[in-house]
Amino acid sequence: MYVLGIDIGSTACKGVVMDENKNIVASAVIPSGTGTSGPRKLEAELTAACGIEKSEFSKIVATGYGRQQYEGADKQPSELSCHTKGVVFLIPGVRTIIDIGGQDAKAIKLNAKGKMDNFVMNDKCAAGTGRFLDVMAKVLETEISNLEKLDAAAEDPVSISNTCTVFAESEVISHLSANVSKEDIVAGIHNSVAKRVASLAKRIGIQDEVVMVGGVARNGGVVRAMGEALGKKVVVPQQAQLTGAIGAALTALEL
Amino acid sequence: MYVLGIDIGSTACKGVVMDENKNIVASAVIPSGTGTSGPRKLEAELTAACGIEKSEFSKIVATGYGRQQYEGADKQPSELSCHTKGVVFLIPGVRTIIDIGGQDAKAIKLNAKGKMDNFVMNDKCAAGTGRFLDVMAKVLETEISNLEKLDAAAEDPVSISNTCTVFAESEVISHLSANVSKEDIVAGIHNSVAKRVASLAKRIGIQDEVVMVGGVARNGGVVRAMGEALGKKVVVPQQAQLTGAIGAALTALEL
Ligand code: SF4
Repeated sequence: MYVLGIDIGSTACKGVVMDENKNIVASAVIPSGTGTSGPRKLEAELTAACGIEKSEFSKIVATGYGRQQYEGADKQPSELSCHTKGVVFLIPGVRTIIDIGGQDAKAIKLNAKGKMDNFVMNDKCAAGTGRFLDVMAKVLETEISNLEKLDAAAEDPVSISNTCTVFAESEVISHLSANVSKEDIVAGIHNSVAKRVASLAKRIGIQDEVVMVGGVARNGGVVRAMGEALGKKVVVPQQAQLTGAIGAALTALEL
Repeated sequence: MYVLGIDIGSTACKGVVMDENKNIVASAVIPSGTGTSGPRKLEAELTAACGIEKSEFSKIVATGYGRQQYEGADKQPSELSCHTKGVVFLIPGVRTIIDIGGQDAKAIKLNAKGKMDNFVMNDKCAAGTGRFLDVMAKVLETEISNLEKLDAAAEDPVSISNTCTVFAESEVISHLSANVSKEDIVAGIHNSVAKRVASLAKRIGIQDEVVMVGGVARNGGVVRAMGEALGKKVVVPQQAQLTGAIGAALTALEL
């Protein structure tokens, strides 16, 4: 018996197939694409990996930004509930979840029982989201996947005084024309994202253990900066990008 | 006897030479440039126009973003006080000033005596400032000076749902690839700027007469949209970009 949990984000679709013992038997992440192409490709990849048809999933649960457009779901719970469930499954002691996605950022406060107590989110402003990093990578003529390595080699991170993506972009251009190293600029960019998200998260109060998830958590430079901005150890689960899909699959098992 | 009023903005330097009878005898607007190059060029242009040396100005007052860096000023009052003074000089009945600059936006509420009662400003977020229009003009591959004409030819303005410059830019790109006319996109962009600034201005309350100044007031499309967003007639003085410099010159006459 297999269930499918699917998390349709603004930039990537994530899927997890789980058996009745909560084992993850297959998972996949693919770009969201336009319209329904992302979820369709995701299904194709996961059914192929398990050797079954879509109709053979006993339940399907969809979450994320695009969940309402997804056809064939038995339930479409919010991202907040799925991320919480997914993270608690992976790291039972979690009390604060920081989730930075492609176009938004959230902080979730959990009680000792692993239930959501409060949350705060930004989905209006590109600063402090993956989009900020996209804009900066473009200006720096590098790939998002390179940022972590550049951050690790920084010697004297620049300070970026503007929070706004647009104004910060101009600052980065000035630093480049002043021949500041890309490494130091990238570390400053990561500090800027972390500062912004930390100030969001502090509104609900930060308690150990702090877990970071979402696509941006794969960038160790942001995780480094987040730890510094919060003054706390920040844990990233191996499946940081899959927590929403894992939570969706766990929800499917409960149906 | 001549005084010099100078307004050093983030994108343009504005200067006004006034005689003791408050007549404007010369004025100039030039790009701010880097360092002190903008103000120096402005002085050169104005002294040439009046046929005098800089040392012959009886007083010099500098305002604006770059006023502290300007050498040789007898006083460096805030932009708020200079803009207010300049606008009241041009349009004595003004009760609300909307000032949209290259990187900021302000709204000033005046009492019946022409004194500032309250104000609100945004200099943190590029949305609702000239920078938003710069970003959009670039995506549309057109000049800022073309926007007014495009706006006037719009038939069915698009709605832009994101306030954030970065997210709105993506919306504009989608509209372009859906073959929406540039005219309708530009009108939507102007509506977005106006909506943002109107929601800022409404915090202090809007009273007639509403006067719009600053570099962006030269764009009739934004003025059109601002009138619609406020539901009020919006007046633009001929010297909309010079009000800060005029206020600085008037201050110089009082010294
Ligand atoms: S501050 Fe900048 S990034 Fe944030 S909403 Fe405004 S324009 Fe967008």
